[in-house]
Amino acid sequence: MSTRIEVAEKILSANDKLADTVRQKFDTAGVFAINIMASPGAGKTTFIIKLLETLRGRLRMGVIEGDLASSIDADKAAAAGLPAVQINTGGECHLDAVMVDGALHRLSLENLDLVIIENVGNLVCPINFKIGSHLNLLIASIPEGDDKPYKYPGAYRGVDALVISKIDLLPYVPFNMDYFQKGVEILNPDLETFHLSAKTGEGMDICADWLVNKVNFWKSNL
Amino acid sequence: MSTRIEVAEKILSANDKLADTVRQKFDTAGVFAINIMASPGAGKTTFIIKLLETLRGRLRMGVIEGDLASSIDADKAAAAGLPAVQINTGGECHLDAVMVDGALHRLSLENLDLVIIENVGNLVCPINFKIGSHLNLLIASIPEGDDKPYKYPGAYRGVDALVISKIDLLPYVPFNMDYFQKGVEILNPDLETFHLSAKTGEGMDICADWLVNKVNFWKSNL
Repeated sequence: MSTRIEVAEKILSANDKLADTVRQKFDTAGVFAINIMASPGAGKTTFIIKLLETLRGRLRMGVIEGDLASSIDADKAAAAGLPAVQINTGGECHLDAVMVDGALHRLSLENLDLVIIENVGNLVCPINFKIGSHLNLLIASIPEGDDKPYKYPGAYRGVDALVISKIDLLPYVPFNMDYFQKGVEILNPDLETFHLSAKTGEGMDICADWLVNKVNFWKSNL
Repeated sequence: MSTRIEVAEKILSANDKLADTVRQKFDTAGVFAINIMASPGAGKTTFIIKLLETLRGRLRMGVIEGDLASSIDADKAAAAGLPAVQINTGGECHLDAVMVDGALHRLSLENLDLVIIENVGNLVCPINFKIGSHLNLLIASIPEGDDKPYKYPGAYRGVDALVISKIDLLPYVPFNMDYFQKGVEILNPDLETFHLSAKTGEGMDICADWLVNKVNFWKSNL
């Protein structure tokens, strides 16, 4: 097992170094990068497309879509008018800095303010791999249930913002918001949290306003 | 990268050997073992508990719950009257044969016909690690969306049965069943498939009847 751990540490260390380089490329271009993580089917792509609509005219947005296979998400994003690049990881359960670095030249960063990187749907592996983002955002969807912070603590501990999505489904599934939020608070007490439905649009404005402020503040400090 | 692949292959090969030993232990005890895999929040535990109710008097069932952290699922199962063992994987994104082997002595196999092993919620990593089960079952929940077979082909290719869960949510979310099933058929043409809601109970009988037949047929051939 020690060989396994040593190899894993070497991979992580090499990845983190390249992630710094990727972040510098974003910095140089004046582009804010967000790493979105979630379970499969939590609504990452739907959130991103709704965000595009809500941000229109305020931030110029592009997207890097990470999936094991298919170009479904990049096709959806492109159809919505987003500059979009698809990464297929093959068997890998997460994006890494090499993959994102390789995708950068396929986006015209000089025309963008914000790049959203949609990670592979997985609540475990993506957390351990930096990809050069300025902000890590977790999406938790209502039908997944209220116990996820307790079961996947690393995902909740390792992010800067949380979107609770699909709140339009609250009447139809058992979900105790107090229990959920108590779990989140133990792991990440000051986590910026948004309640929204990308389907109905409820709560999207508040999240988009926060993001515009975040990006503009970051740009003013470059 | 070659070192990484070599180490990974060694780990998988050692795991597969131990998985054979675990399966022999189940065989010797006359216990049929099912490995349940799914995204986080697809309803694995709710399905297992509803299955217990539906099977009562027909099969004696026990459960091994796999999670990164917490004993929430084992507690729920035990409260429902199931002999239950919790495995916490720490940071690991899947169960492996070592973990399951270590849990076996905590179940009284001689009193059971069926052990359900609930894997960590993850559509990627668990597929690569055998754990000694006789049957691999995937749960896909309706709110995850209809594109999952296309995005996580390994999960659909690597299983013997599929439960499409939370069908009570079909009226409230966009889900094209034809598109979903077309994706499944490409990957796994003869996959045994069940449509059900563990919440309302719809479809549970058919799945439970199939399972009773499956276990009894297996036992008669031991």
